Amino acid sequence: MLVVPEGAPKPVVRVMRYDAGQVEEKPVEDVEQLAALVVGGGVTWIDVQGFGDPAFLERIREILGIHPLAMADVVNVPQRPKAEPYGDRYLVVTRMATMLPERRIHLEQLSLVIGPGWVATFQEDPGDCFDPLRERIRHGLGVIRRMGADFLAYALLDAVVDGYFPVVEELGGVLEALEEEAMEDADRATLGRIHAARRLLLQLERLQWQQRESLSGMLHSAESPFSDPVRLYLRDVHDHAVQVLDVIETYRQMTVGLVEIYLSSVNNRMNEVMKTLTVVATIFIPLTFLVGVYGMNFDYMPELRERWGYAAVWAVMLVVALGLVYWFHRRGWLERGDGGR
Amino acid sequence: MLVVPEGAPKPVVRVMRYDAGQVEEKPVEDVEQLAALVVGGGVTWIDVQGFGDPAFLERIREILGIHPLAMADVVNVPQRPKAEPYGDRYLVVTRMATMLPERRIHLEQLSLVIGPGWVATFQEDPGDCFDPLRERIRHGLGVIRRMGADFLAYALLDAVVDGYFPVVEELGGVLEALEEEAMEDADRATLGRIHAARRLLLQLERLQWQQRESLSGMLHSAESPFSDPVRLYLRDVHDHAVQVLDVIETYRQMTVGLVEIYLSSVNNRMNEVMKTLTVVATIFIPLTFLVGVYGMNFDYMPELRERWGYAAVWAVMLVVALGLVYWFHRRGWLERGDGGR
Amino acid sequence: MLVVPEGAPKPVVRVMRYDAGQVEEKPVEDVEQLAALVVGGGVTWIDVQGFGDPAFLERIREILGIHPLAMADVVNVPQRPKAEPYGDRYLVVTRMATMLPERRIHLEQLSLVIGPGWVATFQEDPGDCFDPLRERIRHGLGVIRRMGADFLAYALLDAVVDGYFPVVEELGGVLEALEEEAMEDADRATLGRIHAARRLLLQLERLQWQQRESLSGMLHSAESPFSDPVRLYLRDVHDHAVQVLDVIETYRQMTVGLVEIYLSSVNNRMNEVMKTLTVVATIFIPLTFLVGVYGMNFDYMPELRERWGYAAVWAVMLVVALGLVYWFHRRGWLERGDGGR
Amino acid sequence: MLVVPEGAPKPVVRVMRYDAGQVEEKPVEDVEQLAALVVGGGVTWIDVQGFGDPAFLERIREILGIHPLAMADVVNVPQRPKAEPYGDRYLVVTRMATMLPERRIHLEQLSLVIGPGWVATFQEDPGDCFDPLRERIRHGLGVIRRMGADFLAYALLDAVVDGYFPVVEELGGVLEALEEEAMEDADRATLGRIHAARRLLLQLERLQWQQRESLSGMLHSAESPFSDPVRLYLRDVHDHAVQVLDVIETYRQMTVGLVEIYLSSVNNRMNEVMKTLTVVATIFIPLTFLVGVYGMNFDYMPELRERWGYAAVWAVMLVVALGLVYWFHRRGWLERGDGGR
Amino acid sequence: MLVVPEGAPKPVVRVMRYDAGQVEEKPVEDVEQLAALVVGGGVTWIDVQGFGDPAFLERIREILGIHPLAMADVVNVPQRPKAEPYGDRYLVVTRMATMLPERRIHLEQLSLVIGPGWVATFQEDPGDCFDPLRERIRHGLGVIRRMGADFLAYALLDAVVDGYFPVVEELGGVLEALEEEAMEDADRATLGRIHAARRLLLQLERLQWQQRESLSGMLHSAESPFSDPVRLYLRDVHDHAVQVLDVIETYRQMTVGLVEIYLSSVNNRMNEVMKTLTVVATIFIPLTFLVGVYGMNFDYMPELRERWGYAAVWAVMLVVALGLVYWFHRRGWLERGDGGR
Repeated sequence: MLVVPEGAPKPVVRVMRYDAGQVEEKPVEDVEQLAALVVGGGVTWIDVQGFGDPAFLERIREILGIHPLAMADVVNVPQRPKAEPYGDRYLVVTRMATMLPERRIHLEQLSLVIGPGWVATFQEDPGDCFDPLRERIRHGLGVIRRMGADFLAYALLDAVVDGYFPVVEELGGVLEALEEEAMEDADRATLGRIHAARRLLLQLERLQWQQRESLSGMLHSAESPFSDPVRLYLRDVHDHAVQVLDVIETYRQMTVGLVEIYLSSVNNRMNEVMKTLTVVATIFIPLTFLVGVYGMNFDYMPELRERWGYAAVWAVMLVVALGLVYWFHRRGWLERGDGGR
Repeated sequence: MLVVPEGAPKPVVRVMRYDAGQVEEKPVEDVEQLAALVVGGGVTWIDVQGFGDPAFLERIREILGIHPLAMADVVNVPQRPKAEPYGDRYLVVTRMATMLPERRIHLEQLSLVIGPGWVATFQEDPGDCFDPLRERIRHGLGVIRRMGADFLAYALLDAVVDGYFPVVEELGGVLEALEEEAMEDADRATLGRIHAARRLLLQLERLQWQQRESLSGMLHSAESPFSDPVRLYLRDVHDHAVQVLDVIETYRQMTVGLVEIYLSSVNNRMNEVMKTLTVVATIFIPLTFLVGVYGMNFDYMPELRERWGYAAVWAVMLVVALGLVYWFHRRGWLERGDGGR
Repeated sequence: MLVVPEGAPKPVVRVMRYDAGQVEEKPVEDVEQLAALVVGGGVTWIDVQGFGDPAFLERIREILGIHPLAMADVVNVPQRPKAEPYGDRYLVVTRMATMLPERRIHLEQLSLVIGPGWVATFQEDPGDCFDPLRERIRHGLGVIRRMGADFLAYALLDAVVDGYFPVVEELGGVLEALEEEAMEDADRATLGRIHAARRLLLQLERLQWQQRESLSGMLHSAESPFSDPVRLYLRDVHDHAVQVLDVIETYRQMTVGLVEIYLSSVNNRMNEVMKTLTVVATIFIPLTFLVGVYGMNFDYMPELRERWGYAAVWAVMLVVALGLVYWFHRRGWLERGDGGR
Repeated sequence: MLVVPEGAPKPVVRVMRYDAGQVEEKPVEDVEQLAALVVGGGVTWIDVQGFGDPAFLERIREILGIHPLAMADVVNVPQRPKAEPYGDRYLVVTRMATMLPERRIHLEQLSLVIGPGWVATFQEDPGDCFDPLRERIRHGLGVIRRMGADFLAYALLDAVVDGYFPVVEELGGVLEALEEEAMEDADRATLGRIHAARRLLLQLERLQWQQRESLSGMLHSAESPFSDPVRLYLRDVHDHAVQVLDVIETYRQMTVGLVEIYLSSVNNRMNEVMKTLTVVATIFIPLTFLVGVYGMNFDYMPELRERWGYAAVWAVMLVVALGLVYWFHRRGWLERGDGGR
Repeated sequence: MLVVPEGAPKPVVRVMRYDAGQVEEKPVEDVEQLAALVVGGGVTWIDVQGFGDPAFLERIREILGIHPLAMADVVNVPQRPKAEPYGDRYLVVTRMATMLPERRIHLEQLSLVIGPGWVATFQEDPGDCFDPLRERIRHGLGVIRRMGADFLAYALLDAVVDGYFPVVEELGGVLEALEEEAMEDADRATLGRIHAARRLLLQLERLQWQQRESLSGMLHSAESPFSDPVRLYLRDVHDHAVQVLDVIETYRQMTVGLVEIYLSSVNNRMNEVMKTLTVVATIFIPLTFLVGVYGMNFDYMPELRERWGYAAVWAVMLVVALGLVYWFHRRGWLERGDGGR
């Protein structure tokens, strides 16, 4: 018996069946209709969204002849991306990425089961990135209507992998913003944000690594259901996955630099604090000493008796202070914001 | 002759024998009974807990036909996880993980010897994670009663690997608590705790790495006793082991970030100490200079003779002090807790 | 239908056709002429610069019999460097590097399609590094006129890889300048510059890594169109790519050292600030105490009554000050610029 | 001609010859006796300790038919651990580890040459870890007397690898002591000691890595002289070597943490110094300002004329001081040893 | 046409021809003589030093039948170490290392071309490390005179690899000196020296890595010209290269520790500066406050009127000062050079 995630939405099944000549598209209410839809010519795409009815899913499993273990991987999300043969069914587990508002990333498992003449896709929540693909099927754009089920599987995987490009672009923007923040305006939360970004990149890197391995298996394994002409296309998807992985790895390396910039920024502030203290103390401590001298109560202190004494002390103090200010200026200690100099 | 760990508890042997139709379960007091239990049809599970009687164990070894080196690995705990053929016996060494109170982790070696029609399990201390499995056998849940000894071995390994999930989840909680502690309340012991967590993760990572290798060997080796249908199931266990390893590696990477947060937290405190000193010194040092000026004893100091002199000095001092406070406020040096700004 | 980058310049096609005896060179205005140029003996080099006319490019694709996926990789720049067979066409994607003014590096994708008796090169913008090669073909220098299309492809790849040597040399100069800056004159922007250099090196390293892999595939793959004698030459290009990669890796390692030097430089400045404060405060604080003593108003303070009192205090203060200055001098705290001592 | 290390002790040769029924043991004074001892049934162990007589060793080499290069590796210590066939002789170079007093580790090369029916062991200095093995042979304990020369070689390697366990245990103790020292009592020498430990672990790791590779070669190579039943035993030695390597790697990782603890410990002290300065300065600087105010010489300062003036100033100063002390206490700056708070 | 480095010295060619019975040695003035020298029995060593005459080298190339690409690698120094077959010629590129005065290391490319019955060596500058080898050939020491050209090539490579041992030993001395400098006497140049050493080690590591790969190719490749008995000897050279590589890697790891020691040393100095300031300020600030109190001008300050007042203040100040000194002493702040405590 299948165990499904609690609170999962009810499954909605849509079937799309096409060949070079025609397209038929309809929602499936009664699961028993499926049996008739996957036999005969053409390609059938069974699209299942929502896992909220175990008996329903179990029946789909039986009708499509999917191995119980494969179905368990489909339902118990998240599994790591992988591609595994189960007799003449082929299970591909992958992860779709989409941007949510406020720069949050949403990752959802998409599982494909490829059978003879059909592809079944399973996802936990409604909504996906396949609408352009559906349009292309409906209007017969490109070669998809003239190809088999393996080409449909390729097109789905292509859409999934291409969905990562806007996500990594967004992440690039996040890192640039963090770099600016670390340089100009770092506070304690900055470091937390950098580490959160690093953690996310680490997670994406592992995911994409496994995705690439899985695609590599589909390309090179003898048990893969992809025909040779479609493998040429799949090689392209593999290339894109490698490109995404490359960018993610570069970004993760950059976070190390961000921490360095943050720490150096904090250090610069400490430096400024110390310079402020030093400038003030170094100017006034000698002056205070001087006025202390003439606060002494010796009976015999000739300067105190002179009329010009007081003015002379002020003059000396001014010279000392200006001299020190000039010296600090020359060492660059008076400019703010130029922390490191 | 077997050498057993000192102070080991006496061995307790329980035997469970089943086929599709029936289940028989009994403790074994006299070791010689075993010989009769492992022949004939069905699957026999010999469960040995405690190593405190070398002669008894040696006799089990002889009856089950286990190689002396295999038995040595069983008894001399801990061995690293591995899977090794000894003729038609197959030794699997693995490690069970359970959470103890106060977030301590208990690791105990479980050794499986797989023979024709039977599986023998050995562990040092009583208590294990197999009660749900026993229930499934007793009540014939799932397919286990219809399968052979290799499926029993799979089910045992599955329970062992799945036992790691709550442990790594707990570790995730520990790391989160440490991150908060490092940010808000770091003292010297924090660094020690971070390093202890890192050490534990390092140890678990190695362990899980070897577990994965061992499972990979069972999956792909020609000498592995697992039949093809059971290997499909075992592939699942392998997947779970990889998932556990992934999480552990991610956690270990996170500890590097924890040290950075800790150090930056300590740095922030130093910063606050310095800012306090700088604010106090920078305000009072000029004022002290000023009062020093009017503490001088020159005969001719016209201000001293004026009635408004004293009040004017106070006024000047107030303006200077307030000006500096305003300047510090604008630079953000007066807010506490915002260490980094 | 091909999708080309927006705003791409119009394609300019030049064809060069040669054999041991003669060279023919002409621009191609009407794409249909191409069909006649690639048949018959000799080697034809079709050089396409600019992607601004999709229909034109699509027609070239058809005439040359290039797979649509290969053409997509040619046009959708940048792709990662790779070498892939498409039936009896062979696609090589590579990246040319040139120095722009102000030490900026320009990377442009160059795609080669190798067919029977011809090589087609594609690049987005006009201008390349092949003029010396064209000269060698025109004047029959070297063996190129006596060799086939695979030798032409080798010669092109050789020029591309050799184009990296001046670039990495320039980068070496940049790193040396940064090292000097980090040591002598580090300000906050220095760290940014170091990280920018690191990022660039990271990117070049990945690129060159893939270039090397791609060359290795051309050398060893059974589907590679290079004949055995030409592979000897190609091995040379592979060697050069490895040398470039080596230098880049060494440079990237050096940036780690640059950050250390920068941080230590900033630290040295903090050290100098602290030493300044310490020297000034340590000299004047005891003196200020001393003059404070004789500013007390006790009725009975015999020194105050002595004629030599004032002079004696000055003498004592001079001795103390000079003693401290000597002590600081001996500890090396008075020398500027010798930050670390 | 063999070149031997200068000042090497004179070689002492002991021969042990045994089969299932009997044991014969004798020192060999005249090298020519050896020829007679290695022919005929049984297993012969030729144990050579000391390299001080090149002619003697050269004659042994000739009698045993060892390749000159193999003999050069035996004598020119230290070589890296390896296993190499020389025709029907098999050279194994390994390294024995023993603890000397004061936690120093002594590493000595042990070379084995395995020939048909005999094993020759060579070491530079007298003394080894094989006495328990000799006892087992003398008294026929275990299976050794019933096995061939390859089992003797296994038993020797087993003793060598097991000799590492007490050494790594000792190193674990050293690291724990260093961790405590780094936390409680770090001075400059601590860092030196940590680096020395790291260097030693690095060296041991390389050594053990090579040892493992060499054992792996003996297990899997077709040229290895070990029979299949003995390879089961050798697999055990390989396992132990892997375990030792694991512990060493974990220890080396720990030294990174030790440096962090040391640096943080030093940082804590700096923190304490700064806090001391800040507390003292922050309390007294305002008070000094206050007393400065009433040291001014204005003619009109009404407070000075009041009887309660002096007492009031003291009262104010007490309130300020106590208030600051209370504020410091609340921030935790007054507790010593709690460096990080 | 060969392109040679500018300003290269004129080539000097010496030929050594030997077999078991005799040795013939002579300089070659006229390049055409060479043709006669490489035919017939025995082994011929053609030793070319200096590349200053392209036509001369080109003629050598033709006479010896060397591929133009191989000759280009010989002349265009430096190439990375490698071993490559060109038909029945075999090119080995390697690098000789020698120590120059002042601990500088000189690296020079040595190229070997191995043909049937001869070995040609090429180097840019006169002077090499082969004189002991020449002596051995002249006097028939060892087996070299009885072996073929492959043994000569082995002997040359052996000399090259063994030439690294004194170099790495010297580097070990450099690192030890740097460690002492970093601990005792670090100034800003120290860090620069550490990074220079790291850079050099990095370069040597890459070089030696490639050297090892190249030797491994000679050992295992089917196209290698080395006969089986000579491969036993070559295995020895490979071992030595691995040993050199091991030491270099260990040294490079050590430089990381050196930077830590340097930084901690600089930190210690900062610590001392801060402690000096803190000790002086903490002792004198309270005293200055005290004398300030009795500098106040209140009409009613009874202590001022007492005869013992002044002495009492001195007494109190002495007690406070001594108390603080004792307290600092107990915390260990007064000892110099014990930076970390």
